[in-house]
Amino acid sequence: MESTITINSGRDRLMTEFQRVRQFSESLCLPLRADDFQIQSIVQTSPPKWHIAHVSWFFEAFVLPHFNPGYRPFHPRFDYIFNSYYYTHGMMHPRPRRGLLSRPTVDEVYRYRAHVDEQMMQLMETIDEKVWSELAFRVILGLNHEEQHQELLLMDVKHNFWSNPLKPAYRDDLQTASGNTRAIRWVEQAGGVHRIGHGDVEDFAYDNETPRHDLLLSDFRLADRLVTNGEYRAFMEDGGYEDPALWLSGGWALLQREAWRHPLYWEQEEGEWLQFTLGGLSPLNPHEPVCHLSYYEADAYARWSGKRLPLEGELEVVLSQQPLSGNFVDRDQLHPAPAGEMGQWFGDLWTWSASPYAAYPGFKPLGGSMGEYNGKFMSNQMVLKGGCCATPAGHTRASYRNFFYPDERWAFTGLRLAEDA
Amino acid sequence: MESTITINSGRDRLMTEFQRVRQFSESLCLPLRADDFQIQSIVQTSPPKWHIAHVSWFFEAFVLPHFNPGYRPFHPRFDYIFNSYYYTHGMMHPRPRRGLLSRPTVDEVYRYRAHVDEQMMQLMETIDEKVWSELAFRVILGLNHEEQHQELLLMDVKHNFWSNPLKPAYRDDLQTASGNTRAIRWVEQAGGVHRIGHGDVEDFAYDNETPRHDLLLSDFRLADRLVTNGEYRAFMEDGGYEDPALWLSGGWALLQREAWRHPLYWEQEEGEWLQFTLGGLSPLNPHEPVCHLSYYEADAYARWSGKRLPLEGELEVVLSQQPLSGNFVDRDQLHPAPAGEMGQWFGDLWTWSASPYAAYPGFKPLGGSMGEYNGKFMSNQMVLKGGCCATPAGHTRASYRNFFYPDERWAFTGLRLAEDA
Amino acid sequence: MESTITINSGRDRLMTEFQRVRQFSESLCLPLRADDFQIQSIVQTSPPKWHIAHVSWFFEAFVLPHFNPGYRPFHPRFDYIFNSYYYTHGMMHPRPRRGLLSRPTVDEVYRYRAHVDEQMMQLMETIDEKVWSELAFRVILGLNHEEQHQELLLMDVKHNFWSNPLKPAYRDDLQTASGNTRAIRWVEQAGGVHRIGHGDVEDFAYDNETPRHDLLLSDFRLADRLVTNGEYRAFMEDGGYEDPALWLSGGWALLQREAWRHPLYWEQEEGEWLQFTLGGLSPLNPHEPVCHLSYYEADAYARWSGKRLPLEGELEVVLSQQPLSGNFVDRDQLHPAPAGEMGQWFGDLWTWSASPYAAYPGFKPLGGSMGEYNGKFMSNQMVLKGGCCATPAGHTRASYRNFFYPDERWAFTGLRLAEDA
Amino acid sequence: MESTITINSGRDRLMTEFQRVRQFSESLCLPLRADDFQIQSIVQTSPPKWHIAHVSWFFEAFVLPHFNPGYRPFHPRFDYIFNSYYYTHGMMHPRPRRGLLSRPTVDEVYRYRAHVDEQMMQLMETIDEKVWSELAFRVILGLNHEEQHQELLLMDVKHNFWSNPLKPAYRDDLQTASGNTRAIRWVEQAGGVHRIGHGDVEDFAYDNETPRHDLLLSDFRLADRLVTNGEYRAFMEDGGYEDPALWLSGGWALLQREAWRHPLYWEQEEGEWLQFTLGGLSPLNPHEPVCHLSYYEADAYARWSGKRLPLEGELEVVLSQQPLSGNFVDRDQLHPAPAGEMGQWFGDLWTWSASPYAAYPGFKPLGGSMGEYNGKFMSNQMVLKGGCCATPAGHTRASYRNFFYPDERWAFTGLRLAEDA
Repeated sequence: MESTITINSGRDRLMTEFQRVRQFSESLCLPLRADDFQIQSIVQTSPPKWHIAHVSWFFEAFVLPHFNPGYRPFHPRFDYIFNSYYYTHGMMHPRPRRGLLSRPTVDEVYRYRAHVDEQMMQLMETIDEKVWSELAFRVILGLNHEEQHQELLLMDVKHNFWSNPLKPAYRDDLQTASGNTRAIRWVEQAGGVHRIGHGDVEDFAYDNETPRHDLLLSDFRLADRLVTNGEYRAFMEDGGYEDPALWLSGGWALLQREAWRHPLYWEQEEGEWLQFTLGGLSPLNPHEPVCHLSYYEADAYARWSGKRLPLEGELEVVLSQQPLSGNFVDRDQLHPAPAGEMGQWFGDLWTWSASPYAAYPGFKPLGGSMGEYNGKFMSNQMVLKGGCCATPAGHTRASYRNFFYPDERWAFTGLRLAEDA
Repeated sequence: MESTITINSGRDRLMTEFQRVRQFSESLCLPLRADDFQIQSIVQTSPPKWHIAHVSWFFEAFVLPHFNPGYRPFHPRFDYIFNSYYYTHGMMHPRPRRGLLSRPTVDEVYRYRAHVDEQMMQLMETIDEKVWSELAFRVILGLNHEEQHQELLLMDVKHNFWSNPLKPAYRDDLQTASGNTRAIRWVEQAGGVHRIGHGDVEDFAYDNETPRHDLLLSDFRLADRLVTNGEYRAFMEDGGYEDPALWLSGGWALLQREAWRHPLYWEQEEGEWLQFTLGGLSPLNPHEPVCHLSYYEADAYARWSGKRLPLEGELEVVLSQQPLSGNFVDRDQLHPAPAGEMGQWFGDLWTWSASPYAAYPGFKPLGGSMGEYNGKFMSNQMVLKGGCCATPAGHTRASYRNFFYPDERWAFTGLRLAEDA
Repeated sequence: MESTITINSGRDRLMTEFQRVRQFSESLCLPLRADDFQIQSIVQTSPPKWHIAHVSWFFEAFVLPHFNPGYRPFHPRFDYIFNSYYYTHGMMHPRPRRGLLSRPTVDEVYRYRAHVDEQMMQLMETIDEKVWSELAFRVILGLNHEEQHQELLLMDVKHNFWSNPLKPAYRDDLQTASGNTRAIRWVEQAGGVHRIGHGDVEDFAYDNETPRHDLLLSDFRLADRLVTNGEYRAFMEDGGYEDPALWLSGGWALLQREAWRHPLYWEQEEGEWLQFTLGGLSPLNPHEPVCHLSYYEADAYARWSGKRLPLEGELEVVLSQQPLSGNFVDRDQLHPAPAGEMGQWFGDLWTWSASPYAAYPGFKPLGGSMGEYNGKFMSNQMVLKGGCCATPAGHTRASYRNFFYPDERWAFTGLRLAEDA
Repeated sequence: MESTITINSGRDRLMTEFQRVRQFSESLCLPLRADDFQIQSIVQTSPPKWHIAHVSWFFEAFVLPHFNPGYRPFHPRFDYIFNSYYYTHGMMHPRPRRGLLSRPTVDEVYRYRAHVDEQMMQLMETIDEKVWSELAFRVILGLNHEEQHQELLLMDVKHNFWSNPLKPAYRDDLQTASGNTRAIRWVEQAGGVHRIGHGDVEDFAYDNETPRHDLLLSDFRLADRLVTNGEYRAFMEDGGYEDPALWLSGGWALLQREAWRHPLYWEQEEGEWLQFTLGGLSPLNPHEPVCHLSYYEADAYARWSGKRLPLEGELEVVLSQQPLSGNFVDRDQLHPAPAGEMGQWFGDLWTWSASPYAAYPGFKPLGGSMGEYNGKFMSNQMVLKGGCCATPAGHTRASYRNFFYPDERWAFTGLRLAEDA
């Protein structure tokens, strides 16, 4: 991956990047049939059609009319249909009903995309230099937003397909990594005051990563790889799902109600464990990282193992010392791989931290409706770090703060252990 | 319409009828885009794709293997996916999740249809004469079953499209009938013992229409046409939706909970009433029959008007004296039309009766899984009579017993008044 | 039992009857502790405190102010708190929240009762002869209303106590009837036009029992006793709860959802069946009638046995030929007893009929808010006949129409078979 | 308040304290009628009867059998009925059904209390000195547990009574504090490393307050009093409940769904604001602290005011510099009072912090089932500090960590502002 785009990268570079990101969204949809574009299996997932329209809507809502007040939207109702949750921007179609929108059709949505692309390219080409940096900022924000949805699209397609009794594969040409996973090595880190959060003013970061600030940590150790399927199976076989002492109260109630006995996407057939992947059902590989865990499961495993989940700050401190590479979407595996000799840091799976998602000291959200983004979710969610096999390379970083509710499992989530040193 | 098909109609006639009915299902889908085939807006509706697959499954489940024990189904999982509610036949995909089946795709479902058609035609051509009448019976049952789903498909598409904020039209070439509706004329009928139910052993009828039996009625009068939009608006404007004295207890609770203030598909825009139709939103015509009423609304209107809803037997006695013609699907209006000079009997809208759907004296359901059909719904539903603008001509008759739950409104339902003579 | 009270019974007789019925309500509450008066275990049950206040409210709402316009209610908010469902009378406390009313206390409610009693006695003593019959009518209606709640109070206390893990007994001095049950004898009845419904203008009956009218029946046979626990256990052991072919669609869905495998109040302990009664848990007696069945279970049993449930009219015709006596509340068993040599007709258990609860031809509800009573429940319920072991003797009769929803089981309901002759 | 009890306080002192705490629970119940002991208005509240039994169960579960293995419980089923959420201890009656337990009666529960008291007093008197400190620890834990339930009992009674349309008062002899509230003064605190958490090994503290550890804070200012009703009304009148920009996403969804427009217990009557208190409905005093706010409302107010909610650590640092006195339950106001000249620190209302409830670095829960207490709730809740007008004096302290879900309002919760210095 070349160096990250910034507001100083220049017009050509940004326009190229715009086209690259936009085209990648469409390339992710190539394996889909028209029928697949429509599905919303649970309220958390969105139909692929909605994703690729919504990311275009972002430019129609926050970029095109901002610089061209006379801009007329492609369709008068798309602002209602494709707004996700920007209440300060306007009313929206209810989230649980996204799967009911057979119109606009996939074809129309692609025409919508083409229209937005054309308008955006023209705007970037012709905009006055005085407002260029403001435009560049919003375009970069829009592209990062689109990359988030690329990742979500893959997670959502996986859940949508899994919800079908036919268990179809999204792709049947995916390569699976092999190899054994060696024992965990523990990376030790001295405590004291560490500096975390995003500080470089030029590189893009979300508002929730700022401001850069001091954080006091104790000495700790971090596992250099994720917990594997094989290790997790030992937890299961030791009665992990039957012992209330291992579980947070909310997790235990959920487990009882939903009869959880294994991670999402696992199933047993004639004594063998299978796992649903974007390549369809396949035998469970004990060397791969265990994935699609809720926070509750990750936390219970950690308690069972006598360790704990890492704090967000612990993860960030160690991640910032590692090269920003790993099993991202460009490796085209779309599944976590066994850790290599060098350990496993970025990519593969978003790692649950033990830290609730909350504001950094001095946090200020972006102004206007664009600020109705990260700040308003700062309750009841947990921070995750590191990116996953569906994350676009270059999209994540050590300071990146992803967040999910502790009961959610459809995302590419995994588990790394920590302990006090 | 030519005379009805029977088990004595002969091979050629039945094969022609088979092709006609099967093709009509597909012609109803011509206005649909691939996207539209997927939608299930409420648990009562099914995606068009599911409908056209399920009616094919009926032949795979109850006809082909019955006469050819070695028959191998087109796909091993379709029996699970496309079984509707035949628990005695086997397990099935849960109804509320029919809209999540992006696979099989529409294309695959059409291949499934073609395969079943081919197998069925071959079977009808080659079957031994000794079992012909048994085959003919099952084929005719399957075709009647398919016609029911043709009607449902239109009702369901209407609700699916209405659920979309874009309010798309299924067709934009539909003709709307015009003309004023004259005052109701009251058809008087002497009471006494009447004979109702299906009696002719040769003509097809569902098991629930049998046996033919005596029914004691009092003298009564029946309105010769349906209640109109204009008349219903008078009820609304008189506070019909605000007066608990007019409503059954279940209706009043529902009305409060759902804030009902008008029939489904009505909406007010700048003081004008509009109505959603299969041709899209259009101004409300006061001369058309009011449609998409629940039983509770029909019953409340009747009480408000000082009349009552007719009994099932009253409707059957009068309908059996009328020609079996009317605004059925072959008129291609797909919307109820104002009553003509001769009144309005069959077609237009299924008329709510005041009679709960229950077994006739001596009722015996069909044997085997095919009998898991009409009998098991004999609780909590009300009988409707007469067919509607989406019913295939020739599918209904005076003895036909349709049934819906009293809170349902997505069907083409209407309201005819009665009174004691 | 002495002869029924009528509007011509005279002041003394009515005043005596008023006191008798009112005192009986209180005597039913003698075994209750203050704590018990408060419980509402499910939305269908009401706390005993609410019952005994509500039946007093009836006189405050429909009698006292009607004859004495200056009447000031005992408490200004009791009209809101103790109105059950008379929307045309005024707003009311929501039914599911009746168990939250710790105030008024039991003591206050008893003072309320005493106040109403005093006012009513004074009114009956002093009312002008000209309006006597109107007053008498309303008093008799109010007393019948109170008797219905006496029956409900026992059913509700039973469910409330059963909901407590301590499984307390309402009474520990109840006598249990013993004896074997002999084989069913079938009472044959010729079909033809029968006259049913309440006809005697003087005797009290509810509006829903009128008008008396002709009904056409076929020849039929009725079992002379109820189905027993032993017979029902054979159905269970034959897989009755596992075979969808035996169940109405709504029943099968309910059974799956709630994991029904036996009647309400049965439980198994170390291989033995126990049954919860108003006297606490006791071993199941196979000779007693099976009780606390839903309509769905009664219907499934009948189908399994090769018989059917009787029609309402069939029950009425046969009941009207039987003496109006049986195991009513005055026998103080509060539990159904094995059938004797003479069979089993009135009392013991309300018998499910196969007839949905609907209006008789020409039915007119009572005028005013008092008419918001029986008529508005005429959808989705089934008729039951005969009274039960909690019914006050003299309260029921052959024409009496009780009604419950087909999924309800907390009432004293049972099952009698019928067949075509 | 005299000095706190510790494990070194000696037998006499502990036995006196035991009696004092146990008697106070009963004195809180003196204003209750038997009827009131039964109510559970929402799943979060418990009936008073359950509270006073459950706190006795604690001694039966964790103290008496631990030191006397032959101890036989008062009733074999009370362990099931009065266990709250100790899954590792055993199964329990479902929380939402606590209001259905009319038995044991209030009288029996008082006998249960007397029995436990007697057994405990005897145990404390006779226990071997070698295990005294272990006993003392468990007794002190049990008494602190009981004090928590004393506070909850008052909160729950308030909600229970408010749920009654009669809006009864728990007490009608409560004194209301008067006086004006002056402008906020801002207490400034230098940042840097502060030491928080409970450190003194002898004084009682809950496990979740430990270990004492360093925390890095920035310079900040804390309001010296709570936000008042008058100030909160300005937020409401400025459209606070209508502006999505002010609300966390979860709060906005809740507000829309529940139509929140003011704090719990406020109501408007003829233009005047009233507030429900333990003394009944009374006019809203603008000088009193606003109470019964959810976290979402507190957070929205803070955002609207341009300030923020304080961090848990900020509150602890400042509270630890204040005298541990305030409007606690012993003042017998049972309602928050206007701040005095010296500001308002402990008592009155539990103050929402902006800190999610999570484990302190190195946190270890208590061993055994007693440890299934604070640790398992460490997800989705927010920390509150300072105690309230229902908290027993001496029960809280600067390091005390209370926690509630962000949507909960029935507790005595309030709001203190903070800002960066």
